[in-house]
Amino acid sequence: MRYDQHVLPNGLTIVGEYNEDAQSVAIGFFTRTGSRDETPELSGVSHFLEHMMFKGSERRSAEEVDLEFDAMGARYNAFTSEENTVYYGAVLPEFQERLIDLLADMLRPSLRQDDFDTEKKVILEEIAMYKDRPQFTVYILARETYHHGHPLGNSVLGSTESITALQRDQMMDYFRRRYAPNNMVVTLTGKYDWNAAVAQIEQTCGGWAQGDSSRTVTEPDALPLERMQPDPKRDRVYLCAVAPAPSAQDDARYAAEVLAEVLGGGEGSRLYWALVHPGIADSADMSYSEQDGAGAFFVSATCDPERTTEVIDLLRSTLATAQNDGMSDDEIARARRKLASALVLRAETPMGRLVTVGFDYVYRRRIEPLAETVDKLLAVATDDVDALLRPKPFDKLTLVGYGPLAEAS
Amino acid sequence: MRYDQHVLPNGLTIVGEYNEDAQSVAIGFFTRTGSRDETPELSGVSHFLEHMMFKGSERRSAEEVDLEFDAMGARYNAFTSEENTVYYGAVLPEFQERLIDLLADMLRPSLRQDDFDTEKKVILEEIAMYKDRPQFTVYILARETYHHGHPLGNSVLGSTESITALQRDQMMDYFRRRYAPNNMVVTLTGKYDWNAAVAQIEQTCGGWAQGDSSRTVTEPDALPLERMQPDPKRDRVYLCAVAPAPSAQDDARYAAEVLAEVLGGGEGSRLYWALVHPGIADSADMSYSEQDGAGAFFVSATCDPERTTEVIDLLRSTLATAQNDGMSDDEIARARRKLASALVLRAETPMGRLVTVGFDYVYRRRIEPLAETVDKLLAVATDDVDALLRPKPFDKLTLVGYGPLAEAS
Repeated sequence: MRYDQHVLPNGLTIVGEYNEDAQSVAIGFFTRTGSRDETPELSGVSHFLEHMMFKGSERRSAEEVDLEFDAMGARYNAFTSEENTVYYGAVLPEFQERLIDLLADMLRPSLRQDDFDTEKKVILEEIAMYKDRPQFTVYILARETYHHGHPLGNSVLGSTESITALQRDQMMDYFRRRYAPNNMVVTLTGKYDWNAAVAQIEQTCGGWAQGDSSRTVTEPDALPLERMQPDPKRDRVYLCAVAPAPSAQDDARYAAEVLAEVLGGGEGSRLYWALVHPGIADSADMSYSEQDGAGAFFVSATCDPERTTEVIDLLRSTLATAQNDGMSDDEIARARRKLASALVLRAETPMGRLVTVGFDYVYRRRIEPLAETVDKLLAVATDDVDALLRPKPFDKLTLVGYGPLAEAS
Repeated sequence: MRYDQHVLPNGLTIVGEYNEDAQSVAIGFFTRTGSRDETPELSGVSHFLEHMMFKGSERRSAEEVDLEFDAMGARYNAFTSEENTVYYGAVLPEFQERLIDLLADMLRPSLRQDDFDTEKKVILEEIAMYKDRPQFTVYILARETYHHGHPLGNSVLGSTESITALQRDQMMDYFRRRYAPNNMVVTLTGKYDWNAAVAQIEQTCGGWAQGDSSRTVTEPDALPLERMQPDPKRDRVYLCAVAPAPSAQDDARYAAEVLAEVLGGGEGSRLYWALVHPGIADSADMSYSEQDGAGAFFVSATCDPERTTEVIDLLRSTLATAQNDGMSDDEIARARRKLASALVLRAETPMGRLVTVGFDYVYRRRIEPLAETVDKLLAVATDDVDALLRPKPFDKLTLVGYGPLAEAS
């Protein structure tokens, strides 16, 4: 592995993790903007704009964008979250230049009024479609409830109302502000040609004008809220709970990963044994999510409506027991080995490494070599997890239920 | 790449694709049994049995199975389909012996009555949970309608009734018949130690008794059926259509992949441009599925209930146009390049290659090297696709709709 970095005069940063043995190159344009950076009237604009990037530029129509990806046989995609909008692809090394050319061109979109109007319908369909996905609905409700007014609770999709009202000029203005080179990081992983990449990106993106790279970062005020949202159209009850956790900049994040793994990292976790193994719930998982200045633990479960109270009680008592009694050395050792190994296996391909490397730089201005991350994970001790539990994060658990809830529950 | 094969005296076949450059080993136990091999009273037993394999053997409790996977840091899983039940994992090369030991031990399960009773509840929860997943519901309905009585239409999950009625003895009998060494293939990919693997598998599985490896293979009688299943609880309408396609043993399967890619392989496909790009449907995809003795094309789409008729008409006319007028050389060239490239990128890891290699052997008794598959895909000509369209497969399209359908539609 070799690490590369170069900053263009306009602030665009290019970083790379070079792997001589890889068979492919993965390239991503990471933009540090998402729903947390939106005002209420712009709700959903980051995600809508992500779609628009595929609709063509001065040089390409939407069809030509698709054709060009296909001509390279690229695996490609894009995603928008609360904090980031990322466009990426993986190709065989001989297509590096074409992939950079395409991604850089897409990110200076035409935002034609026709395309904007058509794509607005697509986004509205997507919002409607997600209403039929209860796991998603409960997650959105839980984020919103837990953050109660904090921008990290903003919905990525936006609402039917906000998208309907959104105008092309507002999107254009948001684009100019946020898709500024000083708010973006280009990440390369795998078998790339560094000098060629830097020269090409300088030529293509060196003229992009600087803009706004600010973000309001405050900690959400976590409270032990409970919200039950009845929907008789669902067959199961969906639960999602949120609790405070270390931020993306906090070294305690390795311990947070281990803690979530012990409690809800699939089969063998405490929540699995308490809820899924005995057939009380359909599923029960926990994960840790790093965010700028504030992390969160997410717990989710689905169950038979009749067992809602039982599942909520078991979920709460499982977390409370961990918080009061801590965890055993064996559990910690097993979880950290499992996490470290999963990390190594995922890192086998440039595409598997791209988002980790990109986010390392976006959040912490430094790419952490895989071996170092593994060492840090394997060094997590029972004391480190205890230190996370001492402030009793689960006393501030926000819990949301969604589905055919009885009046009583 | 090097290819290995060894057959034990009891019929258990071991195959491997060795890759010196890989960082890991992937190992899978492929059992040629699934819902198509079930009688109505056994409906769902293959999938239920797959769950039971994780519940322990003479040597291990369920918890010890999970602990052992975690101790290796394995990525592992299992799946049951209409035709196969597969147990697999990927680990760093030093854990090869432990992973083989664990998988082989799991596949001689205790099937304890207690565990059977508990897991039955888990399966019933899973069936209930899938009722809240309309994409899944419409797919099951479409398979059932298209096959109308043919065993390939059997549900993998089974029904609440069949699972409730199922007894441990029936499962034990099914297990003895179908999990016979002459009905299984052990597949290894990546950086494995072949001699050690063969010696260990011979020692561990060499004493397994032979059983029933038969399967009734006939072609389904495809008919142009239409079935509309109203469910006012859904917010969107879900469509799934099925048409006849080449079998897993037919060399025309490469052309079938290309055909499905042109019509519905994501952005840039004909269905995408007809339905998704203009905002008429939320999604529209097509895929080709190879099966023993009979393949199928699957088309799926979701839309606003008010646009159901429009979407069905466009879907049908898109397929009819292709069938009547064929496809252009450009479209074919683009689709085959895209498929070939996706194949190469997926093959970068042993885990990404495992199921392809295993199914190659299960269906065709030969592992096709990646380079050969790529050559065959790139050799698909417009004539080959025309040959598939000439018998007019879409005249036999079975179409199923599910959701809040108006009386009229």
